[in-house]
Amino acid sequence: MQQIKEILKSKAEEVEKDLEELMTLEEETAPQLTEAMQYTLLSGGKRIRPVLTLLTAELLSGNYEAALRAGSALEMIHSYSLIHDDLPAMDDDQLRRGKKTNHLVFGEAAAILAGDALLTYAFEVLAGLNLDPAAKVKIITNTAKYSGQQGMVGGQVLDLEAENKELTLAEMQKVHQAKTGALIKAAVLNGVYCSEYDASAEKALLAYAENIGVLFQIVDDLLDQTGDTEKMGKVVGRDEELNKSTYPKLLGLEAAKKAAEEHAAQAKAELDIFGEKAGDLKALVDYILKRQH
Amino acid sequence: MQQIKEILKSKAEEVEKDLEELMTLEEETAPQLTEAMQYTLLSGGKRIRPVLTLLTAELLSGNYEAALRAGSALEMIHSYSLIHDDLPAMDDDQLRRGKKTNHLVFGEAAAILAGDALLTYAFEVLAGLNLDPAAKVKIITNTAKYSGQQGMVGGQVLDLEAENKELTLAEMQKVHQAKTGALIKAAVLNGVYCSEYDASAEKALLAYAENIGVLFQIVDDLLDQTGDTEKMGKVVGRDEELNKSTYPKLLGLEAAKKAAEEHAAQAKAELDIFGEKAGDLKALVDYILKRQH
Repeated sequence: MQQIKEILKSKAEEVEKDLEELMTLEEETAPQLTEAMQYTLLSGGKRIRPVLTLLTAELLSGNYEAALRAGSALEMIHSYSLIHDDLPAMDDDQLRRGKKTNHLVFGEAAAILAGDALLTYAFEVLAGLNLDPAAKVKIITNTAKYSGQQGMVGGQVLDLEAENKELTLAEMQKVHQAKTGALIKAAVLNGVYCSEYDASAEKALLAYAENIGVLFQIVDDLLDQTGDTEKMGKVVGRDEELNKSTYPKLLGLEAAKKAAEEHAAQAKAELDIFGEKAGDLKALVDYILKRQH
Repeated sequence: MQQIKEILKSKAEEVEKDLEELMTLEEETAPQLTEAMQYTLLSGGKRIRPVLTLLTAELLSGNYEAALRAGSALEMIHSYSLIHDDLPAMDDDQLRRGKKTNHLVFGEAAAILAGDALLTYAFEVLAGLNLDPAAKVKIITNTAKYSGQQGMVGGQVLDLEAENKELTLAEMQKVHQAKTGALIKAAVLNGVYCSEYDASAEKALLAYAENIGVLFQIVDDLLDQTGDTEKMGKVVGRDEELNKSTYPKLLGLEAAKKAAEEHAAQAKAELDIFGEKAGDLKALVDYILKRQH
């Protein structure tokens, strides 16, 4: 566990540095916009999605530099979604990664636009990757598909519609697959597309991503119920407040924990075809399973 | 004038049909999201930006089918910007193209997400163009650059910052160049990149786009002052209400009209290198100059 923590920390630092570089603009049209973009994008975090892209590219001996940049672009998409999700018209959140949410600092209009700009910039960054054009097109298609109406944004709509509603387990899973699962799949697949790969590798890694997507969500639900606001850097207990369907609510606490363990085991099993090379991606699964904040 | 009106009408119909096709999704994650996207995207309008892409590709004997689709993608970006601009936190508009604005029908959260989804889908559509990958990457880069923080979104921030402020002519032009000019440049250049072209053609068409961008804004300002809400399909007099700097306000009505004519003449002059083939793009200039709504 100590080893994967160090790997994650060092990769998160690489991502942070790359994001800082990408946000150092030669020409700024509106400095206040850049500041609002930087505020949320450069506020740390575990950078799990870019790290997944990096570890996948490493597993497949792919282009590490391109994977780092593709990871940064996906982190921009993740950041924009946080900014928009936190808006008063959406989840109306006050705290994110231990800081005031974007709209509380810059105002609602600037927060909406900072989100729009981050999303747009993500595609500019992907189009500028140091890969051959066909690989870039593949990564752009993949990223758009999983972050748009069939993916993350669609999931966010389902999530809002589900407030104050009793969902079945299957309905809740559909929400999660789109809202959080899709971007995790995009992260892993972008790592694949920064590499030489065959269909069996792609398939196994997609299945891995699906399982850690669910795992991630269950742990998130558990932490929202049992976690600590200060450690988490965001207000916990929001699911209860918004009367959201969650794994512990639908399955009970113990069964939810068991489901997390099963998805963790399945995620690791998917990687068996890669042998020892998949050690870091497997260790990451245990890290997610046991995370405290 | 009659001839260009018919060309514009017929091309706008082609765009409408293509947009309808693009919005007919095989799989819908959240039907309400699709509906909110369709509501604004398929609400007609002159489709000036896609028409510019089409006429440019025609001038250069480029790939018409790809230009049509690239035009549709840019219209998605234009539509998302309208949805977000109309939000209560931004311009707080009630009426757009003769219909209630998106958030008044679907709610603010859905409107924000419909905008996000349209923006994301635009890049998916561009990545799927029937062109070689290098051309697609060029179009995606161009589109992101002109619609993001250095372009349209940056301009929107400047525009919000400028409310209730006296801008100089140069400051106002900076706002306009980013807010409306950038997307017009993207439209024309995307038409170029759907074609075989040389540097002189690209340069002339970019200069054409810059001039009609300014022309478009001056006419818009004039119509907001002198137009009719019913004919325009949007509430006029908003510039005055928001105390915005406009061409007629800074230059006076007559000088603003004269400036429009000068930019129209310059736009046409830029196309002289193409000879008679540029007839439609030149006629479009006169159409914009004389538009009544």
